[in-house]
Amino acid sequence: MLKRKVIMAIADGLGDRPHPLLEYKTPLEYAQTPNLDRLASEGITGMMNPISSGIPVGTDMGHLILFGYQPHHYPGRGPIEAIGIGMQVEPGDIVFRCNFATVDENGIVVDRRAGRIREKTDEIAEAINGIEIEDGIEVFFKPATEHRAVLILRGNGLSDKISDSDPKAPHDGKPYHQVEPMDASKEAARTATILNMLLKKSHAILSSHPINMKRNAEGKLPANFILTRGAGKMVKLEPIVQQLKVKGSCIAGESTVLGVAQLAGFKPITDSSMTGNIDTNVELKARLALEEIAKQDMVYVHIKAPDVKGHDNEPFEKAKAIELFDQMVGLIVQDLPENVYLALAADHSTPCEVGEHTGEPVPILIHGPGIRRDRIMQYSELDCAHGGLGHLTGNEFIRTLHGLIGVVKKQGN
Amino acid sequence: MLKRKVIMAIADGLGDRPHPLLEYKTPLEYAQTPNLDRLASEGITGMMNPISSGIPVGTDMGHLILFGYQPHHYPGRGPIEAIGIGMQVEPGDIVFRCNFATVDENGIVVDRRAGRIREKTDEIAEAINGIEIEDGIEVFFKPATEHRAVLILRGNGLSDKISDSDPKAPHDGKPYHQVEPMDASKEAARTATILNMLLKKSHAILSSHPINMKRNAEGKLPANFILTRGAGKMVKLEPIVQQLKVKGSCIAGESTVLGVAQLAGFKPITDSSMTGNIDTNVELKARLALEEIAKQDMVYVHIKAPDVKGHDNEPFEKAKAIELFDQMVGLIVQDLPENVYLALAADHSTPCEVGEHTGEPVPILIHGPGIRRDRIMQYSELDCAHGGLGHLTGNEFIRTLHGLIGVVKKQGN
Repeated sequence: MLKRKVIMAIADGLGDRPHPLLEYKTPLEYAQTPNLDRLASEGITGMMNPISSGIPVGTDMGHLILFGYQPHHYPGRGPIEAIGIGMQVEPGDIVFRCNFATVDENGIVVDRRAGRIREKTDEIAEAINGIEIEDGIEVFFKPATEHRAVLILRGNGLSDKISDSDPKAPHDGKPYHQVEPMDASKEAARTATILNMLLKKSHAILSSHPINMKRNAEGKLPANFILTRGAGKMVKLEPIVQQLKVKGSCIAGESTVLGVAQLAGFKPITDSSMTGNIDTNVELKARLALEEIAKQDMVYVHIKAPDVKGHDNEPFEKAKAIELFDQMVGLIVQDLPENVYLALAADHSTPCEVGEHTGEPVPILIHGPGIRRDRIMQYSELDCAHGGLGHLTGNEFIRTLHGLIGVVKKQGN
Repeated sequence: MLKRKVIMAIADGLGDRPHPLLEYKTPLEYAQTPNLDRLASEGITGMMNPISSGIPVGTDMGHLILFGYQPHHYPGRGPIEAIGIGMQVEPGDIVFRCNFATVDENGIVVDRRAGRIREKTDEIAEAINGIEIEDGIEVFFKPATEHRAVLILRGNGLSDKISDSDPKAPHDGKPYHQVEPMDASKEAARTATILNMLLKKSHAILSSHPINMKRNAEGKLPANFILTRGAGKMVKLEPIVQQLKVKGSCIAGESTVLGVAQLAGFKPITDSSMTGNIDTNVELKARLALEEIAKQDMVYVHIKAPDVKGHDNEPFEKAKAIELFDQMVGLIVQDLPENVYLALAADHSTPCEVGEHTGEPVPILIHGPGIRRDRIMQYSELDCAHGGLGHLTGNEFIRTLHGLIGVVKKQGN
C-alpha cells in the first residue's frame, strides 16, 4: 500500500446562504478565494451533511464527526470542554459546564456571568477544586474562557440524569434552581443531593473569598456562585488514532475543537496568536500544519472566524474571514508534499441571515495524488452541490479520506 | 406489470484512478469503449459504493452485494469457495480453506504449497474425503485450484471459533500450528480436538499415499499435510432467487463468483475458455448471456481481467481488458431483446497505482426500456460521478434493478 497522508483544513461555520448585501451570493461565493478555487479545479468536490439532511450540529458534534466518530458517540459538551481546557476526564465522570455567577442573599441570580468576569478566575476556582463533599466523591473544578468553568464529579454510583442549577433565563433576576433527579434511580437522587451540597458549600467559600471581597469593594459583581448545566457522563471511547493505527495532530485556537481532537487521540497544538477571530495567525497555522504532516499521518487545521461572523450576521466580515482561510490554504498548498491529500471541510453552516447553525450541507473537497478530478471549478455551496463526490454524510466523507490513506479494513476477501 | 428482465455485466475491479502513464486518464477513460459510451449516452448512470464510502471489499463481498445480499449476510470466504467448486454446504457446516503442504518429520512446514502442486490433487483429496474421526462427524474434502482445497466438518455441536493450523509465515520453515479453541465454549474445544485428530490422521494417510511416494521418488515435494485457515460456519441464507421469485444464471470463469451465484440461487455457467484473464472467451460469454436471458429473469455475466491487471499495476493492459469488456457488452447489445435492461457494474475499484482493492466508488449504468436518460455521454469514473442515478450503495443499485423488473414488494397500499 502506498504511504499517503491527509491534511484537513476546516473553516468553522463556513456554509451560508445567498445574501442580499452580497449581490445574492453566499459569503464563500463573494470572497476572493483563488487558492480554494484552484483546488476545486484540480480536485474532487461534493457536499456534506454532518449527520443528515436538515440536522444542525454544534461545533463539538460537527468536529466529533470530522475526527471520525459517529454521532451516537457524542459524550456531551461538558466532557469535550473539560478535555479542551486540559482536565483529565475518565469514563463514568459526571461533567458540568458552569458559569461563575452572582447571586444575592435570597438566591436570586443577579448576573449569570458575574459581570463577565475574566480576571483571576483561576484563583477563585482553586478554592473549589478538590473540596470534600462526601467520602468517595472527588471534585475537580477548573475555569475555562471568561466566566465559564467546568466541574467534574468522580466516584461510584453517580448519574448525569439531574437537572441544571442554571435558570438560563433570558434575563437575570430569577432564583437559581435546586438540582433535581431526572429519573427514579437512586444514583440520580444521590448525585442531585451531592451537587446541591457542593453548590451550597462553594457559595459559602466564594462569598468570603478575598478576590470577591475586593470585587465588592471595587463595585464589581462577585463570582459567588457556580451555576451548573448540561450534566454529561463521560463514555468510554476508543481514540480514533488507536482504531485506525495512525498518528495525528490538530492545530486550532478553540478549546472545543482541541477537546474533540484530544478525545480522538490527536495531539492538540495551539498558540495565543490563534485568536478564534479574524486576527488569527494563519501563517503560523499553515507552517505548523506542514511541520506536523512531516511527522504524522493526519493533521487537522481549524479556523474559527467564519462561524463567528455568521453568528454576528456580518456577511462582508464573513467573506473576509473566508479569504483568511483561503490564504491559510494557499500557504499550505505551496509546500504540500506529493503524498499528502488536502481536504477542505466545514463543521456546519452558520448563515448570516440566521445567526445560528443550520442543517444545510457544507461544501467539501479532496485534492491530491491520484484523485478523480471532477468538472467543478469553484469551491462554493452551489458549485460543489454538483461535484463528483456527491452528497455524503460527515462519516462517509471522513471514511473516504481514511480509505484514500489506506487505513480502512477490507470487508470480505 | 410489464414482463422485464435484466442482464448485469460486471467488470471485476474496474474502478481506477487517473494514471500518469495514461495521460492522467483512468484505464476506463483511456480505453476505446464505443459500446459502453453508447450505452451511457442512451441510459442513466451513477456511482456505486458496494458497502459505503471508503470501504474496500473483496470480490466475494462485492458480488454478494451485487447478487442482492446485504453485507451482514457474508458467510465467510470458505463457504463461498466450497460452493464455487461444487461442494454441497449446509447451514451449520464448518468450512476451512486449505493448502496442500509439505511438512518434515518434525512438523516444520517445508513448503506451504507442496511445490505448488497442480497434478492429481483430486486423487490425493479422495484419500481424505470421508475419513472417520468421530461418530456423528462427517468430513468432506475437495481440491480447488492448484494447491488449494476446501474442508468441511459437518455434525452437531461444532464451532468456527478455532485457530488456523496454517502458520501463514511469509517464509516457510516454521512448524504448523496446533488448532486451538478461540473462545471458552465446549463446542470450540471439541472442534479443535476433532480437527487436530483429522490433521494427524490425514498426515499419516498422505505420507504413504502412492502419489506422494512417486513425487518423493521424482524429487518433488509431497503433499503430505493439510494446512487449514479461516474457519467459517455456514449461515442459513435464503437464496435471492427464492426471495424475489425469479430465475437466474451467472456466466463466469472464476470460482468465487460462481460460488456467490450459487449461494444466491443462480445457475452457474462456465467453460474452460473462460480463463479469468485477458484471453477469456467473450464471444461465448455474450452468446450464453443472450441464450440464458431468453429463459431467465436475471443473468449476470462476469469478466475478471480488469481486476487482474489492476493488481499487477499494468494500466495499458487494464485498458485492454476493459476493451474486451466493451466487446462483450457490444455483442450482447446487438441482439438484446427489447424487454431486457442491460446494467453495467463492477464489484470494486482496483487502482493500478495501489495494486489492491480500494474503497472508491465504481461507475454504474442502466440501459433499457423506459429508462430515464441522463446527460452523461461516457461510461467512466468521472462522467458517471455526475450521473442521474446519483451515488448509490450496492444494495440500492441492485434494488433499483429489481424495482425495474417489478420484483420489489410495494410498501403500504
